[in-house]
Amino acid sequence: MTDVLREQKRYYAERAPEYDDWWYRRGRYTREPELERRWLLDVAELEEALRIFAPRGDVLELAAGTGIWTRRLVPTADRVVAVDANAETLALNTPAAELVVADIFTWEPPQRFDVVFFSFWHSHVPEERIDDFWALVRSALQPEGRVFVVDSGPRGDATGDGKQVRQLADGREFTIVKHYWRPDQLRERLLPLGFSLDLRLTANSHFLYGGGVLV
Amino acid sequence: MTDVLREQKRYYAERAPEYDDWWYRRGRYTREPELERRWLLDVAELEEALRIFAPRGDVLELAAGTGIWTRRLVPTADRVVAVDANAETLALNTPAAELVVADIFTWEPPQRFDVVFFSFWHSHVPEERIDDFWALVRSALQPEGRVFVVDSGPRGDATGDGKQVRQLADGREFTIVKHYWRPDQLRERLLPLGFSLDLRLTANSHFLYGGGVLV
Repeated sequence: MTDVLREQKRYYAERAPEYDDWWYRRGRYTREPELERRWLLDVAELEEALRIFAPRGDVLELAAGTGIWTRRLVPTADRVVAVDANAETLALNTPAAELVVADIFTWEPPQRFDVVFFSFWHSHVPEERIDDFWALVRSALQPEGRVFVVDSGPRGDATGDGKQVRQLADGREFTIVKHYWRPDQLRERLLPLGFSLDLRLTANSHFLYGGGVLV
Repeated sequence: MTDVLREQKRYYAERAPEYDDWWYRRGRYTREPELERRWLLDVAELEEALRIFAPRGDVLELAAGTGIWTRRLVPTADRVVAVDANAETLALNTPAAELVVADIFTWEPPQRFDVVFFSFWHSHVPEERIDDFWALVRSALQPEGRVFVVDSGPRGDATGDGKQVRQLADGREFTIVKHYWRPDQLRERLLPLGFSLDLRLTANSHFLYGGGVLV
């Protein structure tokens, strides 16, 4: 693991107890009412898209974190295997999924799944690992398997080298990978890797999302 | 306010920072995987029912708490007014709703709403206040207005007088009102008060829910 990936892992371990404040817009993440309303509209758009996608069968979630999405995968799936690098985040996830602590870049899927899902993970994969990461996704999927991706919408606050300095509530700083993708750009990047994804932004551009298949 | 209602209010104020642990089944609320799965199935059933109900227009949420449901009302509503007795819980709710700190038993709605919603509140209304509470709901609704209720499913752990002793994570105990209703029983109780509600239990009986209209 490179230094920045180690630091990124540690950042999410330390952030575990405060992670959900970001999603639920609490404390230092609170914004003014109209911005909050637009965030909630975008969240509803993601949930509706996932509902229509209908993650059925054996579902693998990568970088499952505190389980904001794991809890939405369980009801439609037969089984959910939720992998995360940190035990600290999985401790806040749901035991209704099979929780696996493992480094996603070295983990070998023990079976093939019907669906691979990951949220707010792809933007944390360094460019030089994108090919390997999608090779892992491929190796984890049934031939007819499907993928669903949720991530941050594109914005201008990453440095040119795709890194960000993040601060915890107590002020500690960590350098992490954050590579924002535009839907068309990510779609094109993935086609030669054998994935056809229908990606888009939510109405208020907070999130990139979409589903797809192996080609 | 009676002593038990004062104690109930204080309980939810003190419980605010740990309230969501119950809903997300964390810490002392964690159960074994199959029970957790059934809980999540029931949560999904509630969310699907609310999606179909489609709370549109001006929506009033009573006892809005930390906003687990407020955040689901905002995306489809034109406006959400979220009333709660405690500033401590509303501090964790979303500013995308208009947050009002008020005692629900004395609050006077400043307008008429298209929808009145409340979750895990009705079971905390003492029997002697049920008529007054539903009179408030009536006075808050447009003639064509609709109601949606979410609450605990019936179970046997309330005393005969509809009270419960609840414990916070730190061990402090509070006596609160908890009156479990069966769907048919609540439906019949409300008909003479002028409400026709289509109530049911979720598949695994965790929750009672349903929508209805003024008759």
